[in-house]
Amino acid sequence: MIACIGAGVIGGGWAAYFLARGHDVTAWDPAPDAGDRLRTIVEAARPALNSLGFPDEAWGGLTVAGSLAEAVADAEFVQESAPEDLDLKRRLLADLAALTGPGTIVASSTSGFPMSDMATLAEDPTRLVVGHPFNPPYLIPLVEVVGGSATSPDVVEAAAAFYRRLGKSVIEMDREVPGFVANRLQEALWREALHMVANGEATVEQIDASITEGPGLRWPVHGPCRTFHLAGGEGGMAHMLDHFGPSLLAPWTRLEAPELTPELRNAMVEGTATDRSFGELVAERDRAVIAIRRAVEGTRSANAGRPGPSGRSWSSDEPPAPTR
Amino acid sequence: MIACIGAGVIGGGWAAYFLARGHDVTAWDPAPDAGDRLRTIVEAARPALNSLGFPDEAWGGLTVAGSLAEAVADAEFVQESAPEDLDLKRRLLADLAALTGPGTIVASSTSGFPMSDMATLAEDPTRLVVGHPFNPPYLIPLVEVVGGSATSPDVVEAAAAFYRRLGKSVIEMDREVPGFVANRLQEALWREALHMVANGEATVEQIDASITEGPGLRWPVHGPCRTFHLAGGEGGMAHMLDHFGPSLLAPWTRLEAPELTPELRNAMVEGTATDRSFGELVAERDRAVIAIRRAVEGTRSANAGRPGPSGRSWSSDEPPAPTR
Repeated sequence: MIACIGAGVIGGGWAAYFLARGHDVTAWDPAPDAGDRLRTIVEAARPALNSLGFPDEAWGGLTVAGSLAEAVADAEFVQESAPEDLDLKRRLLADLAALTGPGTIVASSTSGFPMSDMATLAEDPTRLVVGHPFNPPYLIPLVEVVGGSATSPDVVEAAAAFYRRLGKSVIEMDREVPGFVANRLQEALWREALHMVANGEATVEQIDASITEGPGLRWPVHGPCRTFHLAGGEGGMAHMLDHFGPSLLAPWTRLEAPELTPELRNAMVEGTATDRSFGELVAERDRAVIAIRRAVEGTRSANAGRPGPSGRSWSSDEPPAPTR
Repeated sequence: MIACIGAGVIGGGWAAYFLARGHDVTAWDPAPDAGDRLRTIVEAARPALNSLGFPDEAWGGLTVAGSLAEAVADAEFVQESAPEDLDLKRRLLADLAALTGPGTIVASSTSGFPMSDMATLAEDPTRLVVGHPFNPPYLIPLVEVVGGSATSPDVVEAAAAFYRRLGKSVIEMDREVPGFVANRLQEALWREALHMVANGEATVEQIDASITEGPGLRWPVHGPCRTFHLAGGEGGMAHMLDHFGPSLLAPWTRLEAPELTPELRNAMVEGTATDRSFGELVAERDRAVIAIRRAVEGTRSANAGRPGPSGRSWSSDEPPAPTR
């Protein structure tokens, strides 16, 4: 049995995922309407999970517990998804460590607090680990797993293995960095967006459209590094860094870039090196971008089909209009 | 006829797109093998463009010109995609302005130079405008259009209309900002990634996986602002800012956030406001994320099918394994 602590978007989304994967879930949240909230989130997630191949009859059962102690009494794994408040997380994780046995892993969905900062009140912090999901946890595969200074390495390993068994894509970090990996990247983008809105440089609508109609279409298939590897053409990342290296000094964002030392250049070139040819990667990207565009077009709410910012749909059914 | 200046990844990609949309293209690049390079890029793009509904018989014809003057002599529209070198762009744009007639728009694919900085040598800078595409220009719909201080507002309008007629999604900016919109956002993410690699905080592979298995799966359907609107649950952006506002002060990225003033908070809340319900947006996102995951899974090169960083595929055909 898995215990889900917290009945918000993340806690409820985790519950839906664990249920769909056949696990019984006991959930708890101090809100008086926690049960209703959880069931609403789980039911909202059900069609997506059914469609992913988890029919209702394979689901586990959901119990809403009357207390924290009751919720975790029989738990093999606890997923804590309380609000992002350091003091609250400290007290809650200390309680969870005290209320669970030595074989139980307590994972926190924290968006960015290092476990070493959250585990300070726990008598036994060895079983506390970060297991950071992405919204919605029942659809986005990524979970970032990292321990605090007092977390047992075995617990980090076991938590990663637990998520993998559940079909998650796990990034296991060997050190604590606030925001982990994805949220650091996402937060840099988000802060630049806030600056732009604050300064009147772009509207919220332009910012969203610049991603959905632009680089956002590449990121599900090739991450930012491989994307730029392809931007370098046959010369790959090395050519890209030589060509666009100077732009690292340009005021393209308020975030200053690191110095492009030979070490960093080599790390990027070696990190993006692959046996696959430029042509093969381009073909893969092209197939994926087309499929992604079609996927998004086909799934926009019919009565709210949002064309691009130009007011035009992406579809190509308009005949070409030669200029002469 | 459209003139494409530059035979790199971007210039060649533009040529393929214009050709597929039925336009004749005259291209030029100082490289001795410019013709071969262009034809290679155009042929690599052909299957994607065919698949998007542009069969070979509807394509325009490609001519490789022997000189810059010859390339633009009859051009109604010039797309300049030379290397990202300010001095080179200044001289080239001055030449292009001089070599073309008063009815010809000269658009630059620059990744981030403001036109006011590039137009300094042009005798008539009124027809020079930025038309910034994304790689590959034949698949990513976004084009950012913005003029310099000397650009005629009519030219900015006409360039935007030209791209829209060609099926592009256009963001028309009313002011010059280095990097425009999408590249500022992308560059902030990229610089944070470089810092992480430089500091040993994450590997290139982890950075790419954190996006392809994580937030990258949401961005083609909902941009960063709407994504965070949904992260706030029924309370939307307002709740999200109240909940995660404090993280703007946290060291989650090296980019400092702006102060979350009431004005900025309102701009974000109003900018993400929509008549569509939370439930409707969640359902749309879920359908899209599932379709995007399937699209990517189905299009990875068969002999290089890359499972998630966990070594597992996303597919759900594994039976659920209840813990008890």
